[in-house]
Amino acid sequence: MKVLIIASGRGRRIERIFSPKPLLPLLGLSLIERIILTVKREGLKDFVIVVGYLKEKIKEKLRNGDRWGVNIEYVENEQWEKENGVSILCAHSLIRENFILLMADHIFEGNILRKLLKQNLECAGILCVDKNPGDYIDLNDATKVKLREGMVEDIGKDLEKWDAIDTGIFLLSPQIFEVLEENLSQGKTTLSEGIKALASRGVKTIDIEDNFWIDIDTEKDLKNAEIILLKKARKLTDGIISCYLNRPLSAFFTKMLVKKNISPNAISFLSFFIALLASFFFSQGGYFFNFLGGVFTQLSSVVDGCDGEIAKLKFEESGYGAWLDTCLDRYADALIILGICLGLSRNVFLKNIWMVGFFALLGSFMNSYTAIKYDVLFREKNVRPKIRVGRDLRCFFIMVGAIFGHLFFILYLLAFLTNAESIRRIYILGRRRNEKNL
Amino acid sequence: MKVLIIASGRGRRIERIFSPKPLLPLLGLSLIERIILTVKREGLKDFVIVVGYLKEKIKEKLRNGDRWGVNIEYVENEQWEKENGVSILCAHSLIRENFILLMADHIFEGNILRKLLKQNLECAGILCVDKNPGDYIDLNDATKVKLREGMVEDIGKDLEKWDAIDTGIFLLSPQIFEVLEENLSQGKTTLSEGIKALASRGVKTIDIEDNFWIDIDTEKDLKNAEIILLKKARKLTDGIISCYLNRPLSAFFTKMLVKKNISPNAISFLSFFIALLASFFFSQGGYFFNFLGGVFTQLSSVVDGCDGEIAKLKFEESGYGAWLDTCLDRYADALIILGICLGLSRNVFLKNIWMVGFFALLGSFMNSYTAIKYDVLFREKNVRPKIRVGRDLRCFFIMVGAIFGHLFFILYLLAFLTNAESIRRIYILGRRRNEKNL
Repeated sequence: MKVLIIASGRGRRIERIFSPKPLLPLLGLSLIERIILTVKREGLKDFVIVVGYLKEKIKEKLRNGDRWGVNIEYVENEQWEKENGVSILCAHSLIRENFILLMADHIFEGNILRKLLKQNLECAGILCVDKNPGDYIDLNDATKVKLREGMVEDIGKDLEKWDAIDTGIFLLSPQIFEVLEENLSQGKTTLSEGIKALASRGVKTIDIEDNFWIDIDTEKDLKNAEIILLKKARKLTDGIISCYLNRPLSAFFTKMLVKKNISPNAISFLSFFIALLASFFFSQGGYFFNFLGGVFTQLSSVVDGCDGEIAKLKFEESGYGAWLDTCLDRYADALIILGICLGLSRNVFLKNIWMVGFFALLGSFMNSYTAIKYDVLFREKNVRPKIRVGRDLRCFFIMVGAIFGHLFFILYLLAFLTNAESIRRIYILGRRRNEKNL
Repeated sequence: MKVLIIASGRGRRIERIFSPKPLLPLLGLSLIERIILTVKREGLKDFVIVVGYLKEKIKEKLRNGDRWGVNIEYVENEQWEKENGVSILCAHSLIRENFILLMADHIFEGNILRKLLKQNLECAGILCVDKNPGDYIDLNDATKVKLREGMVEDIGKDLEKWDAIDTGIFLLSPQIFEVLEENLSQGKTTLSEGIKALASRGVKTIDIEDNFWIDIDTEKDLKNAEIILLKKARKLTDGIISCYLNRPLSAFFTKMLVKKNISPNAISFLSFFIALLASFFFSQGGYFFNFLGGVFTQLSSVVDGCDGEIAKLKFEESGYGAWLDTCLDRYADALIILGICLGLSRNVFLKNIWMVGFFALLGSFMNSYTAIKYDVLFREKNVRPKIRVGRDLRCFFIMVGAIFGHLFFILYLLAFLTNAESIRRIYILGRRRNEKNL
């Protein structure tokens, strides 16, 4: 099935920041790249893009789609200053079958498209609507839809009574072209008018439920999109420290790093390197170095959250990348504890340091080892665990211990806490061993 | 689809050992239980069992199948001393559709049935044949099959020219009953004669390829079945020590333990407990205790191989069980290294013991951690890695070090070897990261 993207408009309200709008950067990808990658992940690869305003820039950037493994054909709309119905008509010659219609400035979650692609088109079209628009949706500017028994009854920007918002995501039969032609002869040029006319032949709607979409027209929309995408990029199994303390910092780093041409794996190594520095500081002993070690440990933990977020935001997620990250984390954990033991053992009055360190290492490993299976419990139900003894908590404890000069106590605490938690998980999983997927 | 099992015969050649033959114990399960569990795992749950000789014993043992979650109906054959065709005829009233026919004394791998169940029965029957029978198959007693273009042309014990051996595993249409009735009126009572008559209506064959089956008629067959099942129960990713050194011992323990009513998880705890003893011995220091520690470490490693084998042999495999085993192994690893460090540190002349122990622990953990992903490479291709740095090798090294009085050197070696191997795996997996499943 072909995917038609309308990328011909000028985007006046945001051109102060960037122009043309389809190439507007948002967290490391232009709007249209993000749409192409979202669509590609749902299995569609044939794109028709209608360009108009600054068309050469768009074509130069996207080319034929090879580098993403997709095919892009271009249609030029010389009358790009007219409404979007005209742009769609331009693609008529390239589209003979049912197709997906998208707007270059409408960012959305892949789930919406996945849901749409499961539908059989038994009428003239299907429109994805948002029955419960978030407060970041500008309702004045949005296209409203009035429904009757799940079908479009009326559509337009100025409806007084409406049931849902048009998300700009469609599955359409080629009948739309006939309707738009007819409209054009009557001087009507918007897509909404086309859909309104098509409604007499039957246009079904499906609700996007709590999936995210946004139409980016203004700087404020862009900010909102950034905030929401960053939030969506976070891991569901984030611990309490990741969630509430690391987030502002981590979002800052992610926002900064996602715009650079740095691979997620490189970020994993960066986090490891910071942990290595922490280990070195700890190994020197004394309050000043311990303080530095603590801060760097926490910093490493913050940066550690960025690789996955960046991979997600840039569609660069890989099984190997996620796994490499956990391997490096294990080495980082070990080196930090080693550094602490080396530093503390300079103080001859503390006995048993190594044995406590040994158990802290064992426990932190078992935490990660058991997490692989334990997290499944939460991922399945799509909930966050209330308190999760994870790397974020361990690193935070170490920082606190270092700052307050109680590293040895913290080492004891970690040795106890992490092992107790691991044994608890083994027990819990044992009790629930007959549930599926465990 | 119903599964008909013929369990009516007397089994004269083995009754010296056990009678009735369907209840003959083989590695913790009776022959017929093993068949029922093999079939159940392939998704079939409705059994019809023809009983005759000592029928009450069989019914008393299997009951209605509830405890395995299957349904068992019984048919009694008062003329059980006659040939097996008569037994099959007894089930006529209970079977109206295509069915699977099995013999209570033919042990086989589930793969064979899986392959058979994928077939569409477009002729009168399908017979699983062995074109390349192993040397443990008694060819004098076996039923031979002559093929023409994959169909049965002739079948019988005394064929001079034959292409394959009848494995006693069939998918049959109810036409077999008509044919057997007709045969009976002519005084022919064997299944082979029935299949021969059915061949005129078309009986297809499928080759079992290198899957295992055996017809257990004699004590020698039973021994062979035991040896082969034990071999099949071993993990494919077994290391070199598991494979060549631990095997005789491990097979001995497995054979002994599988007959007891001990759960695989209990064996995992037993192995852990032996490691705990090893750790205690090591912690006492001195050659004698180190020697004991070394031997117990290796013993723990041997017993550690038994839980999975027993689970497999008794159809008690579980994801949780396998995972619990690896968690206990991690704790066992850590405690053994801890014991060694404690014991060695009684000798004040050795410096850096704890740091070396720390890296040995780290490396042995990373070995297990990376193995999860690394082993996929081998499991996919169904090959054993040539040399695998795994728990078997680590435990063996520790025993050798203890026996030769070079534990500290071994600790160094492990610290180096396990970390080097882990880093190598991370590198290898990185290079192959674009392969599927990685």
